[in-house]
Amino acid sequence: MANYKVTFNHKAEPVVVKSGTLITEAARLAGIEINQPCGGQGRCGRCVVQVTEGKVRQRSTLRLSSEDIGLGYCLACQSVIEGDLSVLVPEQEKVERRLVTDRTAVEVEPLPGYSPEYHQSLRRYFLDIAQPNYEDQTDDLSRLQKHLRVALGFEQVEIPVTLIKKISSAFREGNWQVTVYLDISSGEDGISLIRLVDIVPHHCENDNPIWGAAIDIGTTTVTLWLVDLWTGFVHAQVSEYNAQIRRGEDVISRIIYADKEGGLQELQQLIVGTINQLVELACKRVKDYTVTPEQILKVTVAANTTMMHLFLGVPPSYIRLAPFIPTFNQAPLVRAQEIGLHVNPNAIVDCLPGVASYVGADITAGVLSAGVDDTDKLTLFLDVGTNGEMVLGSKEWLVTCACSAGPAFEGAGVRDGMRATTGAIEEVWIHSETYEPTYRVIGGGKPHGICGSGLISLLAELFMTGVIDKAGNLNTSLSTPRIREGEHGMEYVVAWGKETVHGRDIAITRVDIDNLLRAKAAIYAGFIVLAQSVGVPLEETEQVLIGGSFGKYLNIEKSIQIGLLPDLPWEKFNFLGNTAVKGAYFALLSQENRERIREIASKMTYIELSADNTFYEAFMSAMFLPHTDINRFPSVMEAIQSVKVPIQS
Amino acid sequence: MANYKVTFNHKAEPVVVKSGTLITEAARLAGIEINQPCGGQGRCGRCVVQVTEGKVRQRSTLRLSSEDIGLGYCLACQSVIEGDLSVLVPEQEKVERRLVTDRTAVEVEPLPGYSPEYHQSLRRYFLDIAQPNYEDQTDDLSRLQKHLRVALGFEQVEIPVTLIKKISSAFREGNWQVTVYLDISSGEDGISLIRLVDIVPHHCENDNPIWGAAIDIGTTTVTLWLVDLWTGFVHAQVSEYNAQIRRGEDVISRIIYADKEGGLQELQQLIVGTINQLVELACKRVKDYTVTPEQILKVTVAANTTMMHLFLGVPPSYIRLAPFIPTFNQAPLVRAQEIGLHVNPNAIVDCLPGVASYVGADITAGVLSAGVDDTDKLTLFLDVGTNGEMVLGSKEWLVTCACSAGPAFEGAGVRDGMRATTGAIEEVWIHSETYEPTYRVIGGGKPHGICGSGLISLLAELFMTGVIDKAGNLNTSLSTPRIREGEHGMEYVVAWGKETVHGRDIAITRVDIDNLLRAKAAIYAGFIVLAQSVGVPLEETEQVLIGGSFGKYLNIEKSIQIGLLPDLPWEKFNFLGNTAVKGAYFALLSQENRERIREIASKMTYIELSADNTFYEAFMSAMFLPHTDINRFPSVMEAIQSVKVPIQS
Repeated sequence: MANYKVTFNHKAEPVVVKSGTLITEAARLAGIEINQPCGGQGRCGRCVVQVTEGKVRQRSTLRLSSEDIGLGYCLACQSVIEGDLSVLVPEQEKVERRLVTDRTAVEVEPLPGYSPEYHQSLRRYFLDIAQPNYEDQTDDLSRLQKHLRVALGFEQVEIPVTLIKKISSAFREGNWQVTVYLDISSGEDGISLIRLVDIVPHHCENDNPIWGAAIDIGTTTVTLWLVDLWTGFVHAQVSEYNAQIRRGEDVISRIIYADKEGGLQELQQLIVGTINQLVELACKRVKDYTVTPEQILKVTVAANTTMMHLFLGVPPSYIRLAPFIPTFNQAPLVRAQEIGLHVNPNAIVDCLPGVASYVGADITAGVLSAGVDDTDKLTLFLDVGTNGEMVLGSKEWLVTCACSAGPAFEGAGVRDGMRATTGAIEEVWIHSETYEPTYRVIGGGKPHGICGSGLISLLAELFMTGVIDKAGNLNTSLSTPRIREGEHGMEYVVAWGKETVHGRDIAITRVDIDNLLRAKAAIYAGFIVLAQSVGVPLEETEQVLIGGSFGKYLNIEKSIQIGLLPDLPWEKFNFLGNTAVKGAYFALLSQENRERIREIASKMTYIELSADNTFYEAFMSAMFLPHTDINRFPSVMEAIQSVKVPIQS
Repeated sequence: MANYKVTFNHKAEPVVVKSGTLITEAARLAGIEINQPCGGQGRCGRCVVQVTEGKVRQRSTLRLSSEDIGLGYCLACQSVIEGDLSVLVPEQEKVERRLVTDRTAVEVEPLPGYSPEYHQSLRRYFLDIAQPNYEDQTDDLSRLQKHLRVALGFEQVEIPVTLIKKISSAFREGNWQVTVYLDISSGEDGISLIRLVDIVPHHCENDNPIWGAAIDIGTTTVTLWLVDLWTGFVHAQVSEYNAQIRRGEDVISRIIYADKEGGLQELQQLIVGTINQLVELACKRVKDYTVTPEQILKVTVAANTTMMHLFLGVPPSYIRLAPFIPTFNQAPLVRAQEIGLHVNPNAIVDCLPGVASYVGADITAGVLSAGVDDTDKLTLFLDVGTNGEMVLGSKEWLVTCACSAGPAFEGAGVRDGMRATTGAIEEVWIHSETYEPTYRVIGGGKPHGICGSGLISLLAELFMTGVIDKAGNLNTSLSTPRIREGEHGMEYVVAWGKETVHGRDIAITRVDIDNLLRAKAAIYAGFIVLAQSVGVPLEETEQVLIGGSFGKYLNIEKSIQIGLLPDLPWEKFNFLGNTAVKGAYFALLSQENRERIREIASKMTYIELSADNTFYEAFMSAMFLPHTDINRFPSVMEAIQSVKVPIQS
């Protein structure tokens, strides 16, 4: 085995290592400490180094942008040395700044015409307080209240004890000039109060930022945008896995865990801990200002109903029990310290309103940011994840439902399924004559399994090439070694063991196919029920807006081929990314948008599918590829005819 | 030294101990555990035993009622064996129940005509909630809010997250029948909200108690009354030293301590700790019900302004700095959990309003319970302690001031001064010819020092018998060995060393006399300033109401003789005991009374003496016995003439 020389930070003396050594290992030999908080698993991105000369094989490029990769950055713990190298180890501070944790970071335009004085509910005022003396011994709190009443016209201002503690020293340190922050929004409980959020000595500069955060708590991923409420500009976008994952992959298993002794408290601490990490990270990311978590004065939260319950520490027990009643859809405003959030302790935490146990604030926020409630077009809005939540409507009306699609599209319940990370097959093509597959792997290396988009792609190709029939049965008469009897019945081999990371064959089984059929049938049946409930043919849908991080990896053509999405012209589909955090951001910035979400939540009609007879019928009809009623999928019918594969029964 | 036999709990075999052994020591020899939480200092009263035969010398009878003492009860850690004994050690539970911690416990009549439905702000309602189903999937919180709105007419109800957590299980455990507790009072910040205080499954009995507590936080002593808000009946009265004492005797030293690193937090924890102890003790004391701290749903607090700041953890720094501005006089309502109070976590804590840095809620509450704001009579209300707070007025108007009397009347700043506990000389008589004193000692044993009432008594006797002149100078020409040159100048010996606990002479020095003159002059000058401020001669006062625990030990005659109290007929004086806790109790029971305290606080005119020129003049005039202007004290003039002691100059 060859030996290679590795030079660190332009030192004279290189270290000599064997081929296949990791950069972290070589660094240790060279006496250089490389931080590996995740233990060298390639998850945290903190061990990033820059290879200025030579080549490495990167097992994973998770958390690196394409720009980073172009500049030679790689994860030291994931980079195998395959030649002489020259490596620069950046200062940790710089690593933190450049780290791109959020692969879903998007360009956000501040709201057009945004004016903090007009739109923002978090207000900043500079006060000149009349100094006390022996003739006017009014206490400091009354002095502040009087000023707020007389100078600003605010009659009832809630001033919590933790802020009363700060008043006297702020007055005197600022020589009777103070800056106060007030929130004038009213909570979901209809309690309209002005709330004092902070008081600090002196007047600050008028154009100083006022920091706020928009958060989407997903079952899998939590996303946070750090926003200057004064300009509306998003200064950092970060996301991280929800630390609750280790206590269950989906909402149902989390609810069950929460019912255990101490489980609820643990899950709350895990999600709050994840958010606290993101807050710290986001603060470090801001380039133009030094921001501390204590400066964040307002937080707006979108989440599905179960996540919102867990975030506030409210038992979600009854969400999973018929008739599926959540404890709340609209939470009152809370102060950050009440739930242990490490921003300003008195920061206002605004939990956006949901509609039902399985249609939460992530959907109402998504409807807002997608503009479904503001369009004349008949719109189908869709957030595909573990649950498929969907909304049909326009500015006239909105109906919604959630179908328990199961986690198949997230890679669970499928033998070789996995999440959409490095090593996942994300796209498959099958040759229509040899039945040999070609595939693309996330990260470019050997495959480890198949992620959701890969499964949709695979299922579509299997069907379009006649490897499986409309019921999902494998065609055993085809002459290819890839169709075989496996341990769990018939299966199709996508990658032979010699091609894979683990040396085992990657295949899709008949059981997997059934699970995928059920998942896609549930979603399509949801569309049908929504359309029927309002008496509108699904085909009349004028646009389909797809939110959620999974959404953006969906291949429209193949999703239609398997009957997951309705057969509409492709240009009617639009991927919007994380519509939930964007909606939270809109609501964080503008009272009008916040009010719109309230209206969306109250006007949306929720259809409980488990109580709906039409759903089961629609579901059974959709258990075929693409559907029992092929006329619903004219483009697929045409495509099948063009590849000249007979539709088997 | 003699040996004695001590039999415990009627056992056959006595233990044999030397004379002078403590009962706790003998019990240990007999293998009997006696609880001594205070470490055998005679403070806690938990080691009480009953001596059924034989005699002991009791060093202290603190916390024992005269009835207890009559039945042979004594503190084992303070009882010296002086003969053969038979002792019963009661069960600890019984000890807790019979323990009289509050020597100031008083008979309280429930308010005449008290009706909880009408007077009480804490309301109990029984709700029958409509059960959800697939047709009505309203979330539980909205269901509750709707019920409160439709059935009870409450539009805006504050429901904290800690209570949202309880709603779903309460609904289902109670089979959709629940009992809710709501507080309808508005806070001092003018924020009028209905507040949900608790929700529990099932309907409870309609006449079940609803527990509340009235508290007076004194600088030295904290008193708590446990009250059934349904009947208005006081079920327990307990008091305890304020644990902050170890960090300073008076408010000024506490403020200085609070300014130190960590000092504020420590002082808050100490006072909250004291209250938490009292809550537990009070719950145990209730005879007819089993009460837990969690059942206490409302707490009303009276306290001086510094104590109120420390109770809420608000820095009191500026109270002691000119122009003496407190951070607040009126605190908002808080929930118990915000300040660590161990009652129901969502209990409403209502801090009564004060007037100024040195006229706090203890005075406004006292004015209420003394009825000063409701009488036609010109009334002087007075609370003598470390500070002398006083109010002059009637239902027409109220003026108030506080004079820094200093701690002389609490025994501090006087060489042989002490608090009014066992061993304190509380009353002195001096023979007008021999100048020999007679005295009474609290607890009946040998004296240890002189307490406030003893000092007033002594000063009056010294003056009335001519031992001192009107300026406080000792008459060295009298032939008595008790007047002598001591280490600190001239002094009068009250008790020779052979008579005292410690074997040292107990005397009053010229310096002590000056301190006492200053204290009494400050208080009398306060009266003069109040009267002058409204242009009413002090002599026209129709009644003098004296609150505070010290007040009840004041001897009116002697207090007038030294010029501490104005020279009015004795029947115009009335001792009211702890008017502060009584006022808190009145406010706890009735919204009308609570509103009256608010009005008292707002209508009372505060006179800052340090900014008042007339005060210094009045003070200097009062620095004589009884006063420079003897015509203000006709009864004293007459008495002096009757004892035929020439007034010396």
